[in-house]
Amino acid sequence: MSELKDVIVIGAGPAGMTAAMYAARAQLDVMMIEQGAPGGMMNSTDSIENYPGFLSIKGMELGEKMYQNTKRDGVEHVYGIVTGIEDLGETKKVQTTDKEYEAKVVIIATGGVHRFLNVPGEEEYGGRGVSYCAVCDGAFFKDKDLIVVGGGDSAIEEGIYLTQLAHKVTVVHRRDSLRAKKDLQKQAFSNEKMNFIWDSVVEEIVGDGNKVTGTIIRDIKTNETKTIPADGVFVYIGMIANTEAFKNLGICDEQGWIKTNELMQTSVKGIYAVGDVRQKALRQVTTAVGDGTIAGQEAFNEIKALN
Amino acid sequence: MSELKDVIVIGAGPAGMTAAMYAARAQLDVMMIEQGAPGGMMNSTDSIENYPGFLSIKGMELGEKMYQNTKRDGVEHVYGIVTGIEDLGETKKVQTTDKEYEAKVVIIATGGVHRFLNVPGEEEYGGRGVSYCAVCDGAFFKDKDLIVVGGGDSAIEEGIYLTQLAHKVTVVHRRDSLRAKKDLQKQAFSNEKMNFIWDSVVEEIVGDGNKVTGTIIRDIKTNETKTIPADGVFVYIGMIANTEAFKNLGICDEQGWIKTNELMQTSVKGIYAVGDVRQKALRQVTTAVGDGTIAGQEAFNEIKALN
Repeated sequence: MSELKDVIVIGAGPAGMTAAMYAARAQLDVMMIEQGAPGGMMNSTDSIENYPGFLSIKGMELGEKMYQNTKRDGVEHVYGIVTGIEDLGETKKVQTTDKEYEAKVVIIATGGVHRFLNVPGEEEYGGRGVSYCAVCDGAFFKDKDLIVVGGGDSAIEEGIYLTQLAHKVTVVHRRDSLRAKKDLQKQAFSNEKMNFIWDSVVEEIVGDGNKVTGTIIRDIKTNETKTIPADGVFVYIGMIANTEAFKNLGICDEQGWIKTNELMQTSVKGIYAVGDVRQKALRQVTTAVGDGTIAGQEAFNEIKALN
Repeated sequence: MSELKDVIVIGAGPAGMTAAMYAARAQLDVMMIEQGAPGGMMNSTDSIENYPGFLSIKGMELGEKMYQNTKRDGVEHVYGIVTGIEDLGETKKVQTTDKEYEAKVVIIATGGVHRFLNVPGEEEYGGRGVSYCAVCDGAFFKDKDLIVVGGGDSAIEEGIYLTQLAHKVTVVHRRDSLRAKKDLQKQAFSNEKMNFIWDSVVEEIVGDGNKVTGTIIRDIKTNETKTIPADGVFVYIGMIANTEAFKNLGICDEQGWIKTNELMQTSVKGIYAVGDVRQKALRQVTTAVGDGTIAGQEAFNEIKALN
């Protein structure tokens, strides 16, 4: 068992790094546990154009810059895969696959992962035409032909969003009707730029070696395949919260996202959640740093009140 | 009367600029009205060290960079002093001293102003030892002697925060007891680094021409004055919401801050508030850009649902 920390932050995306920075600037003893490179989902984002202060910056570069903020302010960064948190009341134990840590406050910032299509070309063209976030990447596709894969609320909301920019948006859905809310369906069906291909799944994403040129889809009723030309493919077949390790705490909603109040507090005193892992309306770098700020500062308030 | 805009953002601080940017990136027609230079309160902040991605940046420079984001995305920027908003139901009229505009959605991002001491030296040493934000500027004063002016919750909270960094914190208060919450008082009185000078007001902030060296205080009972040496003076005698023009809408709390839900919606449909002007726990650049993002995107959702 290591010494008792003030704060352990789990995950080093923009939310976690900001929480760690604010807590450390309040002179708390802060450890940040991350299983990959600092940056989180920014690391798989080619260019970020909607984080104010940068017209355009590579996701990895912004991650590195934010990491420098945490180093400058004295955050301790350790490698680890967190497997669970044990609530001991005034302190919390954080288990990783090979060590155990203890802190007065734990801030969960583990984010989520997009559900992938798992088809040829998807990984190859990630960030080069394949995207999982219209609000993030839509502006790169002005007047282009786009494919949206999925039929739920997210797929249709983001599809409508993309019609503001794109020349044409084609929704490819595996069923013969949408799961999305009725008002979204109404908007989608009355939108001239939106087209629908039903009962079809994406078999492959094709490109010219540099960027996406289209997708090969298969009609699951006839088994026929055809190629749909497109400049971009937006995949919305779901997102998975990285909260498997925290299920026992009873802080997640049915989809696995962690519920908090506006101070980022979960239902367990001393455990906070910030960024994408939180049940929230909009998952962006800006909203992540906002969340992280509040939790970092609240951690300070909570620990000072204990003393 | 000008043409109908989709969105009018009032105020061009970090919250307003981010809201404008997100709305514009969703291809809405966005106008931003500002009575000064874009940047808001950042413009009166020397160095910003807690906006992730920048180790340290001049406040004015970050304001200019964020402004470039809005220009790149097509936000129209006009000069104007807003005197009121009229709710016409589906649209809102925004009056300035010399013009009238109309929009489907209005986002209020007018921030607040610190109440000043209005004593000699205060303006001269602003950003050079005189500060109104411990969380922003505290880290510049490691191991220094500091003065906090005020006796309310903010003064004491921030004073305690500063003890984490400073060598010594002296609270100068005009009364003989604190107005702050009892638990804060308890923390403050048991903190070895905190000292109190009662029944005293600041008469002048003195310096060496380059930075603060102390304050001259006057005991209001004896009328004696003395000089207290200090490297920094933190003024917490209140903040004033810039909401005079919006009082008629019934969206403010007793202190004048605008109440919103977590989607930044006020009680008037189509009117949002973001950033410092909002009733909220923590006023930072990070939380401002988080707020702005949510309102910019919600404006899009609201306008699409109307169509």
